Amino acid sequence: MSLESDIIASLQRVRAGGRELALCSSAVKNGALARLADALRRAQAAILSANGRDLEQARAQGVRPAFLERLTLNPARIEAMALSVEQVAALPDPVGEVIAGWRRPNGLEIMQVRVPIGTIAIVYESRPNVTIEAAALALKAGNGAVLRGGKESLVTNRMLAELIGESMGQAGAPADALFFVPTPDRDVIRILKHSTKLIDLIIPRGGASLKEALAGSEVPVLPHFDGICHVYVDRSADPAKAEEICFNAKCSRPSVCNAMENLLVHAAVAESFLPRLAARMAPLKVELRGCPRTRAILKEVHPATEEDWDTEYLDLILSIKVVDSLDEAIGFIARHGSGLADAIVTEDLSAASRFEHEVDSATVYVNASTRFTDGFEFGFGAETGISTNRLHARGPMGLRELTTYKYVIRGSGQVRI
Amino acid sequence: MSLESDIIASLQRVRAGGRELALCSSAVKNGALARLADALRRAQAAILSANGRDLEQARAQGVRPAFLERLTLNPARIEAMALSVEQVAALPDPVGEVIAGWRRPNGLEIMQVRVPIGTIAIVYESRPNVTIEAAALALKAGNGAVLRGGKESLVTNRMLAELIGESMGQAGAPADALFFVPTPDRDVIRILKHSTKLIDLIIPRGGASLKEALAGSEVPVLPHFDGICHVYVDRSADPAKAEEICFNAKCSRPSVCNAMENLLVHAAVAESFLPRLAARMAPLKVELRGCPRTRAILKEVHPATEEDWDTEYLDLILSIKVVDSLDEAIGFIARHGSGLADAIVTEDLSAASRFEHEVDSATVYVNASTRFTDGFEFGFGAETGISTNRLHARGPMGLRELTTYKYVIRGSGQVRI
Repeated sequence: MSLESDIIASLQRVRAGGRELALCSSAVKNGALARLADALRRAQAAILSANGRDLEQARAQGVRPAFLERLTLNPARIEAMALSVEQVAALPDPVGEVIAGWRRPNGLEIMQVRVPIGTIAIVYESRPNVTIEAAALALKAGNGAVLRGGKESLVTNRMLAELIGESMGQAGAPADALFFVPTPDRDVIRILKHSTKLIDLIIPRGGASLKEALAGSEVPVLPHFDGICHVYVDRSADPAKAEEICFNAKCSRPSVCNAMENLLVHAAVAESFLPRLAARMAPLKVELRGCPRTRAILKEVHPATEEDWDTEYLDLILSIKVVDSLDEAIGFIARHGSGLADAIVTEDLSAASRFEHEVDSATVYVNASTRFTDGFEFGFGAETGISTNRLHARGPMGLRELTTYKYVIRGSGQVRI
Repeated sequence: MSLESDIIASLQRVRAGGRELALCSSAVKNGALARLADALRRAQAAILSANGRDLEQARAQGVRPAFLERLTLNPARIEAMALSVEQVAALPDPVGEVIAGWRRPNGLEIMQVRVPIGTIAIVYESRPNVTIEAAALALKAGNGAVLRGGKESLVTNRMLAELIGESMGQAGAPADALFFVPTPDRDVIRILKHSTKLIDLIIPRGGASLKEALAGSEVPVLPHFDGICHVYVDRSADPAKAEEICFNAKCSRPSVCNAMENLLVHAAVAESFLPRLAARMAPLKVELRGCPRTRAILKEVHPATEEDWDTEYLDLILSIKVVDSLDEAIGFIARHGSGLADAIVTEDLSAASRFEHEVDSATVYVNASTRFTDGFEFGFGAETGISTNRLHARGPMGLRELTTYKYVIRGSGQVRI
């Protein structure tokens, strides 16, 4: 059998299994999750041994230490996976929620009811915990799931996928609703992205190469690729808040999409604020790049090029621009931001209102760090990515964002006149 | 200038105009709509004269009478357009609605606020009223709009688009936010469907040839193409209700997507129900096609082929199948339905519950006609199509379905730990 017909057959099984899973009660789904948490703990030694084989292979291929670190499991990380599964089990079931309901003049009762999307493919890089977390969320939301992880964690992921399938089966949930792609063949992505009848949504979790591989997808792709986030320090900003927020937005975890890349500072406060911020960031050796007016204040700063304003560094690098007005800041963000997370620091009510209203990003902050753009920080109890899409879901995605709805209409013989 | 660069320049103007429109108050938007309603009434003679030129051309090309009928305007139809614009003005503004809001333990206040999607392209066939209705809805929801109508109504549409632009300008709304494509060149569709940076959503309103033209679109397309709707008459159905609902679902307007195409009848009631229905439909000369068991009851019925179960007739043709159980009916609908609208007629509570729960269509009816799948019948006060998509919007689409949301987060200096 060819790879393609093999994959298609598996996707058809996921479709059928997903239909069954969509009708499973919360009790069955939560039962499967509870068994999975147990299985992860009981199989700790076997998981570590599988992971050891992946690590050995990866070392032999000379992958970077940071990559190796993400790939590595240990007892604490396995316990964290088990806990995350238990947390998903504890979340309210989104399926069956009546979102809205009303009665029409002719007596028809219309209810808008939350239901699973169908089949979701999650394509990710090599952190094995994504296998568990993505599967747990898809299962809880009643969706069939196709998991396609990085080739370096294939042995670990295959073992984890087996545990998921067994746990589902034992709890009376359809194990077929989950399919872990057991081959690293890149051709699989091409097959997935053209399977419009069998996959309803692809969620990528990874970098530029994944984006490229998914280009031209006929199946809708919910991207969360670029995070070019801004903080604008207004003329009325409280300097202490501004310092804390900027430091947190840039330095608390520079490698993530909600970290600040561009800082805008109002000209009226630039001379006092910029040296203060530079001093605060100096111990972390943050590389500052600035516009000419920034460099007139901070002499040691490198010049920022036009390209800098559009670059997601994901590193301890910060581009700084001095602006003359709130309008200039809002215009700059519209041109250079990626629409993920942007913040204003201000004590001025009208500036705050205008920023909230006019900055069209998925998450817009007043006096808080952009780093809060995260499903857990939003209180969703889970996260399946952060969307900068303008359709379906926008911003942090939790369980609800893995659902759609249908209308149930109850009548007593009504016909349309 | 080439067609492509010309269109792209117009789309860029729409993007900029749309950003401005997104920030316009309800008063400004409603003012533009009020002016448009007035303008339609005042320009009646000019509109009819433009329409006359289209009709003349169409007649010369020998188009079908039904097509000509849809293309034709008269004073009553122009008044209907003006009224529909006034109705949209009277609807609540979806933009700015706070969908949800909550406070986090750290004091952050999170609000989910409804905002426009951005730029929407509406691609439609030759009914000129779509120009007015689509523009009014896009405007009210704060979206930039690209309108691409059929070539046969080009003169009429161009005139209507001018009135829209003038009304917007007079009311202080950005006329640039609306762009009517002034050429019938099919190449425009190719340009639109690859303009991912400039168009956020394409809504097609038309048939198979439009579907084909939009294949491979990189811009998301919200389709509402196929309507293969079922009515299942359960063994416990009230025969009078079943007769009324089936007659209404098939015959009240057979040319629309929410009309019934396949009828399923439980074996226990087929012998009594089918002759009754056939008699009711006889005066309208509905062509019945049936499975062998149907044909054993209704001798004059043509045999239904496998293809019949998957065909949207949009005509006075009905395929009938006798089934042995609710399970068989639900399974049949899963295989042959298009997921738009399906109904059960039953007096049995558990059959009704199972049908509601297990039939996964955008609209699922108990004891009511599928013909209610419609934005106006749902009480939305407007309609921009009916979606069978599983992402973004599903079912009848009103104003809200032309929006997305953003999160506004208010803090007092919070940083992420």
